[in-house]
Amino acid sequence: MTDPGAVRSRVQRIVADGGGAEIVWDLLAAEEPMEIRVGFGPEGRRSVRTIGVTMRTPGHDDELAVGFLLGERLICSADEVEEVGREEPEDAGRSIDRIIRVDLKPGVEVDLDRFARNVLTNSSCGVCGSATLRALNLDGCRPGPGRGPVIDAEVVHRLPEALRGRQLVFARTGGLHAAAMVDEEGGLIAVREDIGRHNAVDKLVGARALGTLDGPSPGGSAAILLVSGRAGFEIVQKAVTAGIPVVAAVGAPSSLAVEVAEAFGLTLLGFVGPERFNVYSGPRRIRVEPRASAPLD
Amino acid sequence: MTDPGAVRSRVQRIVADGGGAEIVWDLLAAEEPMEIRVGFGPEGRRSVRTIGVTMRTPGHDDELAVGFLLGERLICSADEVEEVGREEPEDAGRSIDRIIRVDLKPGVEVDLDRFARNVLTNSSCGVCGSATLRALNLDGCRPGPGRGPVIDAEVVHRLPEALRGRQLVFARTGGLHAAAMVDEEGGLIAVREDIGRHNAVDKLVGARALGTLDGPSPGGSAAILLVSGRAGFEIVQKAVTAGIPVVAAVGAPSSLAVEVAEAFGLTLLGFVGPERFNVYSGPRRIRVEPRASAPLD
Repeated sequence: MTDPGAVRSRVQRIVADGGGAEIVWDLLAAEEPMEIRVGFGPEGRRSVRTIGVTMRTPGHDDELAVGFLLGERLICSADEVEEVGREEPEDAGRSIDRIIRVDLKPGVEVDLDRFARNVLTNSSCGVCGSATLRALNLDGCRPGPGRGPVIDAEVVHRLPEALRGRQLVFARTGGLHAAAMVDEEGGLIAVREDIGRHNAVDKLVGARALGTLDGPSPGGSAAILLVSGRAGFEIVQKAVTAGIPVVAAVGAPSSLAVEVAEAFGLTLLGFVGPERFNVYSGPRRIRVEPRASAPLD
Repeated sequence: MTDPGAVRSRVQRIVADGGGAEIVWDLLAAEEPMEIRVGFGPEGRRSVRTIGVTMRTPGHDDELAVGFLLGERLICSADEVEEVGREEPEDAGRSIDRIIRVDLKPGVEVDLDRFARNVLTNSSCGVCGSATLRALNLDGCRPGPGRGPVIDAEVVHRLPEALRGRQLVFARTGGLHAAAMVDEEGGLIAVREDIGRHNAVDKLVGARALGTLDGPSPGGSAAILLVSGRAGFEIVQKAVTAGIPVVAAVGAPSSLAVEVAEAFGLTLLGFVGPERFNVYSGPRRIRVEPRASAPLD
């Protein structure tokens, strides 16, 4: 196994109706902790601080670290980054052996104390916070997509198929989320997979910042953020901060995802499939042919 | 709509191949922030502190708050809780209008500073931390299931069907995770749904602590923690702290989930369905009939 996203494991497979049990090899989606550190301050007085530990699927670690900083709006662009790289743990045998350090340029100011105060717990998924809600209303980095492109409905219908064709680890483990940046013609700019759907989006945002987009259409402009599962509010939040005007989810959106999308003028699509999809907000960016549509706005 | 778990929304449904667009009503899984506060300290010198904000699906809020405290091992049992209830926001118009306050008994000591230090970010799912990993090895609350019961494979095969029959909000929104506590005969002790799978588990743990179990078999002993989706490590961690010896997931487990299950002697089942399932650790708790099994341990 050279793919860091999957781990081989010996399992016992039980078959119903007296089919008994057999030992088989199975591939598991890899999940491992990664620590993110930020180096900052003027030359001669540099500091390094741990800002978080993420449980993630290994691979594209630098992109994840930078995308995380951008998503949390600790930095406003990759121009503020001097260097990204792996750091060795100080003590052997600690439980986290992967550390990614993002060194900011000497002139860049970063308010880590505000970030720490805003971090509103916790160790379990689905817990995030009012900090994020409030942060969306701050204008430090001035996020928020413009009016954006108009996308043909036929392009939307083809998105899940295009994504599945590139979900390499998911196809073998069934255990990963995928996210893609897509241009307005449906071209894939990049695809990333992770055990956490938010990490997959952070990896995409980091890849764009670091110039490591590698899809069939890496030069396109990101019109659509496509996710393989459901769209909670934080997926929409990440699209807002990344300036991507359309979010398309193969699964269902949440109520708050719709509220945030409406508040920030995003187009939010759910249950996207070859036969149909739903438009929860911003239908002006979707072109339906040939029958006339009944726009909501 | 009186069900707090779902929100009605007007959406535009787009149909492929010139099927046009129509306006329909759709049900969304509700997602709203909830703040958890802890009241603590000796009589006469009580303090109240916010320990987190969770994005959750409304409903069973008290259970979620208590389950969260138990899962984070801030408290060891419901005996330490004096009262749980809703608190009104101090200022109108703030973004979080649901606050649940858990008042601990005067004699209970709680190390919120340690908790705050251990909170290792952040606003996105999938981020949790070494804090949790380390906490699992602490013996403050002495978690860890014993040898536990032996469960018939036929009981396991029937679990997903039993869960689906009680996923009330999911059936209408497609947007919620479900978790169930199940006894060794397959009887449902309680089922909870939430936009966050971890919240669904916290709600179960809180329900047991508060005595509000309401499944068909509420009096059973929790042998199995059943989850509708995938099992990441934190689901296994929650089973460890809750003392539930078997975790059964309808979806795939992660590599770290398997590692933690092995380390703590849990039985971890994945891809559970009527035809087959996989045993990733602890096969001694699964009885396969009539053909002989080939146990891994």
